[in-house]
Amino acid sequence: MASSHRATLDTAVETLRSRAHWSPHPEHPRAYADDGEAAFRALCDRRFDLGQPGTDGWAGGEVSPYGFPLGITYPHADPDVLLPAMRAALPAWRAAGAERRALVCLDVLARINARTPEFAQAVMHTTGQAYVMALQAGGPHAQDRGLEAVAYAYAEQTRTPERAEWTKPQGKRDPLVLDKEFVPVPRGIALLIGCNTFPTWNGFPGLFASLATGNPVLVKPHPRAVLPLALAVRVARETLADAGFDPNLVALAAERDGEGTARTLALREEIRIIDYTGSTEFGDWLEANARQAQVFTEKAGVNTVVLDSTDDYRGMLGNLAFSLSLYSGQMCTAPQNVLIPRTGIATDAGHRTYEEVVADLAGAVTRLLADDARAVGLLGALVSPAVRERLEAAERTGRVALAPRAVTHPDFPGATVRTPLIVALDAAEPTAEKTYLTECFGPVSFAVAVDSTEAAIGLLRRTVTERGALTVLGHTTSEAVAGALTEACLDTCAQLSLNLTGGVHVNQTAAFSDFHGSGGNPAANAALVDGAYITPRFRTVEIRRPA
Amino acid sequence: MASSHRATLDTAVETLRSRAHWSPHPEHPRAYADDGEAAFRALCDRRFDLGQPGTDGWAGGEVSPYGFPLGITYPHADPDVLLPAMRAALPAWRAAGAERRALVCLDVLARINARTPEFAQAVMHTTGQAYVMALQAGGPHAQDRGLEAVAYAYAEQTRTPERAEWTKPQGKRDPLVLDKEFVPVPRGIALLIGCNTFPTWNGFPGLFASLATGNPVLVKPHPRAVLPLALAVRVARETLADAGFDPNLVALAAERDGEGTARTLALREEIRIIDYTGSTEFGDWLEANARQAQVFTEKAGVNTVVLDSTDDYRGMLGNLAFSLSLYSGQMCTAPQNVLIPRTGIATDAGHRTYEEVVADLAGAVTRLLADDARAVGLLGALVSPAVRERLEAAERTGRVALAPRAVTHPDFPGATVRTPLIVALDAAEPTAEKTYLTECFGPVSFAVAVDSTEAAIGLLRRTVTERGALTVLGHTTSEAVAGALTEACLDTCAQLSLNLTGGVHVNQTAAFSDFHGSGGNPAANAALVDGAYITPRFRTVEIRRPA
Repeated sequence: MASSHRATLDTAVETLRSRAHWSPHPEHPRAYADDGEAAFRALCDRRFDLGQPGTDGWAGGEVSPYGFPLGITYPHADPDVLLPAMRAALPAWRAAGAERRALVCLDVLARINARTPEFAQAVMHTTGQAYVMALQAGGPHAQDRGLEAVAYAYAEQTRTPERAEWTKPQGKRDPLVLDKEFVPVPRGIALLIGCNTFPTWNGFPGLFASLATGNPVLVKPHPRAVLPLALAVRVARETLADAGFDPNLVALAAERDGEGTARTLALREEIRIIDYTGSTEFGDWLEANARQAQVFTEKAGVNTVVLDSTDDYRGMLGNLAFSLSLYSGQMCTAPQNVLIPRTGIATDAGHRTYEEVVADLAGAVTRLLADDARAVGLLGALVSPAVRERLEAAERTGRVALAPRAVTHPDFPGATVRTPLIVALDAAEPTAEKTYLTECFGPVSFAVAVDSTEAAIGLLRRTVTERGALTVLGHTTSEAVAGALTEACLDTCAQLSLNLTGGVHVNQTAAFSDFHGSGGNPAANAALVDGAYITPRFRTVEIRRPA
Repeated sequence: MASSHRATLDTAVETLRSRAHWSPHPEHPRAYADDGEAAFRALCDRRFDLGQPGTDGWAGGEVSPYGFPLGITYPHADPDVLLPAMRAALPAWRAAGAERRALVCLDVLARINARTPEFAQAVMHTTGQAYVMALQAGGPHAQDRGLEAVAYAYAEQTRTPERAEWTKPQGKRDPLVLDKEFVPVPRGIALLIGCNTFPTWNGFPGLFASLATGNPVLVKPHPRAVLPLALAVRVARETLADAGFDPNLVALAAERDGEGTARTLALREEIRIIDYTGSTEFGDWLEANARQAQVFTEKAGVNTVVLDSTDDYRGMLGNLAFSLSLYSGQMCTAPQNVLIPRTGIATDAGHRTYEEVVADLAGAVTRLLADDARAVGLLGALVSPAVRERLEAAERTGRVALAPRAVTHPDFPGATVRTPLIVALDAAEPTAEKTYLTECFGPVSFAVAVDSTEAAIGLLRRTVTERGALTVLGHTTSEAVAGALTEACLDTCAQLSLNLTGGVHVNQTAAFSDFHGSGGNPAANAALVDGAYITPRFRTVEIRRPA
């Protein structure tokens, strides 16, 4: 097992250098057993015990977006007991060294991977993702991002050797000779604050980056999506114990309604690292207030699409329709504003006016989701009533180019399923700005008429600078426009996809190759995964003495 | 030139991995021409013009600690003009790529190296360092730290390739193929806030780390030590212009008396990186207030020596006497508190009581500095009246075990030269704590009697945790005690030297091998140079498109 993990680690490190396609985690559902639902049902309607110290009660009230309560309660922690227990586990974990930590983390991931169908059910019934997406994004893709973090952490910690001999010549005198030892030292306890929509995909990078660099990790899940991270905590604790380490290196902090646990924990002196995915408001609060910690945030942005021209109009529309529909637009990477020159765009199907492009896009979405069974497999369910309310409010912000449609889920009639709304706006209309420059999380996009491609790029720059963006998509057949889009994204530090017309979508990134976010615009202060995501999690202490 | 720089870069990157001894910059004064003083004199009593945009006047009032005014004035900048000019220089520098930037930075360093004697005079007459130290620490050692930063920046930026092809199999269908481009994107304009005592040694790492990662750098020197950094700015501007880049990538901001320029500049929205060396008070202020910037600080700490036992008593005393004397203790790395068990220590010269150790240490310092000519070559001059006042005040804090002696400098009778003060304190005395737990920058150390080695290590832990430390020194023949010291330093994140009795001193670190500071205790939030010092200075933007 250790040697196969070692080979996986080596390949992961190498792939981070080549940025080629690779994953040790198969993404096809058929690669996994069909035992997820039974395992999930066995978890429901009972306590989820983790054997943690400082458990002073039980908390939990998850309701599946597919329409039933999970009925699971989780340990509620007294931080005055739990945090010292976690801190006590640190020295032995630090002493294990970077390689051993990496291999134990890989064992955690391998065990999680083996339980992918169970995680898929847990993700589906907390986020509302459709099953296949829950399996892939919540399973192998999340595991990939975790492994990526481990590999990066290993590489950064081992760029300095464990030991070195330093010999300085002194002319005719004896040289100065020192033995030097270098030890990666973790910052302290890390706090992972999970999100509702991608608890594992957004949670695993921080969890494994912190753990692999020697830090105990306290996981505070979103109260509506506890189970996926609770399962991960259980697997991590079991793996750590099996490897001879204190299981309290990873622990869960479930919260009671309205308790504001994240806010309280984030300010504890013991918490030295925070990983957070969620609203801009709370992310900004963490950055401003959790001054004792290194804070990594992924917040909200306003993702822009610039349509200039295309030599594959049909492919462009299909690709974009898919991006707007996937998981009902409930992705931080989903496009929101589609900027289209008022005079239209050149395509392989001839010139298309703004109105025609908007109508064609609406048609592409409609066709994509015409079949209810296919539609629910792509849309999933709305994660919360707030998204439905936002969708309804958005219908009143402009001319409705595509009205949302309620779809009845064949298996889960209690699920709230809606097809996307497209609202047509004109950038020349002063009141429109407030609408499209605000993030509207959910199945809502704005087709914004602009004066020209140049104006679109100007608005792109402004949007990223003021509101941030996790993704930017451009369609153009002009290298000059591609260059201008590139300059705009370099200047504003946004990740750019160009001319996606096939099976790759702007809202998807591949671990080991693509960066998720940049860390350089207001949507996030961190990227998954780069050096800046890893290096602040540990320090190197040197012990030197004469040889 | 480029190919020799390329070889130097490769060796630097490799040495950072091996941590062996290496430097391309000779440290012996004889390696350099004897033209420094003439060059320095030619700079005095005139304007130091840099041809910068936005120069709205001239500022400068440096007085050599050796007793004469430099009479140099420097451009005073209007940031509303200078900062936009610097920002405008960024895109071309970003487009140059990591390797080209590194090679240009190496050319800057090579040109600085060629002018080492001139820098030596500039450092000597702004810091008060003795000439040989000014030449070595202000010249080759500072250049080494700059090169180290460039090499680390190059390595971190190039760990992701410039381009990658990503091919994902799709079973029987055509694979998905993407072309990906990865561009390191700088954060923005960096502000370097220089210090009085080591303007180049502490300044070059941040200057070159930021420049090599694509950021323009505005240098705000300490008003008492402008010339060394002004010279560096001039060389950088000339080198950049010769290489076809905008010289405004590096600029100087000299300040008028009491202007508080650092505070004003640090809060400008354009400033995205700050490197600072100086007082804890202002460093803490920067960390708390310059929220738009990534802030790297080196502040003050209380450096501790723990004496447990030694098998080379004479070597230990001589080594420690040197560390206390070098540059009159005006080093952030100089020992302050020497903790000695009240019952004494075991040595190869027999058991020595606390009183005997203190007396022997005082004797070692006295012998080391008995000859005035040798003494001034080691002590240099006090950098400012504040240090002299602090020294005088410290004489009243306890029993004087070694009184400072005023030494007349043979060449510079106006210099204030003092031998070190050693004050004997007892940790059992409640009033002593306030004294030894406060940094006393200058030629002052406290020989603190403690109950035992265990108590010493406890006090060490407390000191580093509460006050921070850049260095810790231990002397012991016991592996158990060495282990306890190591655990204490790992737990508190402090750099540890053990049993230094020869030509290596605790206050000296070697670039490419030793870390300066850890970034993990209150003395500094950054270390010279590790990944965490580099990676937040840039982000990676990806442009992907179908192949």
